[in-house]
Amino acid sequence: MTAQQYGVGARVTLSVYDSGYVQIILAALADADTTGLTIETNDISTFVMGPESRVLGFIRDVIAGAAASGAHLSAAILLSRGCPGELQCALPPGVAAQGSDPVSLEPAGVRARAHWSLYPLLDGESTGEHMTPIYAAIERAKAEGVYSGSDHYATRLDGDLAAVLQTAANAWIAVGATVQHVVTHLTVSINSPSPIDA
Amino acid sequence: MTAQQYGVGARVTLSVYDSGYVQIILAALADADTTGLTIETNDISTFVMGPESRVLGFIRDVIAGAAASGAHLSAAILLSRGCPGELQCALPPGVAAQGSDPVSLEPAGVRARAHWSLYPLLDGESTGEHMTPIYAAIERAKAEGVYSGSDHYATRLDGDLAAVLQTAANAWIAVGATVQHVVTHLTVSINSPSPIDA
Repeated sequence: MTAQQYGVGARVTLSVYDSGYVQIILAALADADTTGLTIETNDISTFVMGPESRVLGFIRDVIAGAAASGAHLSAAILLSRGCPGELQCALPPGVAAQGSDPVSLEPAGVRARAHWSLYPLLDGESTGEHMTPIYAAIERAKAEGVYSGSDHYATRLDGDLAAVLQTAANAWIAVGATVQHVVTHLTVSINSPSPIDA
Repeated sequence: MTAQQYGVGARVTLSVYDSGYVQIILAALADADTTGLTIETNDISTFVMGPESRVLGFIRDVIAGAAASGAHLSAAILLSRGCPGELQCALPPGVAAQGSDPVSLEPAGVRARAHWSLYPLLDGESTGEHMTPIYAAIERAKAEGVYSGSDHYATRLDGDLAAVLQTAANAWIAVGATVQHVVTHLTVSINSPSPIDA
């Protein structure tokens, strides 16, 4: 089953805290490599579908491109797998879970701080508890050096934008090897004037 | 068990696409009613904990306050219940699910368009499929008049900001009556210059 058939993709809302936001966002979207991707932008977010490494590479490039303006920005990112379609999942529950190779992203040269949440969407006939893979993912983030604390409802990541995205994506991919429908959300902040614990 | 003990709360990232964003965000936060709430703002988002009706009333007021500036803005909102604590859930899996009365919010007088996702976090010993309450929530959104389509990975809502928040919150509360740990994410867009299907 291809990434497209399995519903591998993202929604991204890029918010630029600058009155010149239209030019900054459009330039960042225009400069990013869209090879192998389906991309649709509407008034709320941009939909990106394709193989994991290309989806994440595109997200890194768009955010880094906008960050190069120097403006403060945030990005709300949703990664989903195992539930293609719109109103309903086109894959019924119980389809064999499909993992993928981990992604490896070149550094973006931009520091990112993020709140990250991972949702393994089990069904009643599944085995195990949903928090078990979440705790394992937090341990991996610590080993990868981008963990910087846990706030309520989210894990805090801090590092090069590519490393932050890679940690979240590889946790999502790893859980996806055993759970069909897995979603992860990231809120990334770049160029913030706020101190970390303001 | 109180809302606080059960972990009822939110994280909100308010993004204002305007070079005067600091003043707009700080003024909106300062003007909102914080009665009964625990609120902590850091560099990525604002944490809000308390009873459902107060959490949602605060979120409506902060977003509507910022929207009154006329600036384009987006808000990334996470509502969570049933998993208090930071690094680990302080409630173990299997605690009896705790619902709440639905919230009823006064209109904000601001039109909001949103992408909305609902995550019932079942465990393997649960019964049922995780998509069943999601499909039911989408049907309720249609009956409530704020459903405006389904995009990949998210349902599109459109209406007064309060009606949009109320539909998402009441679905989250309703699923919470039978599922301990339920999270919902909204990305709300206000004052966008983009046409709906740009």
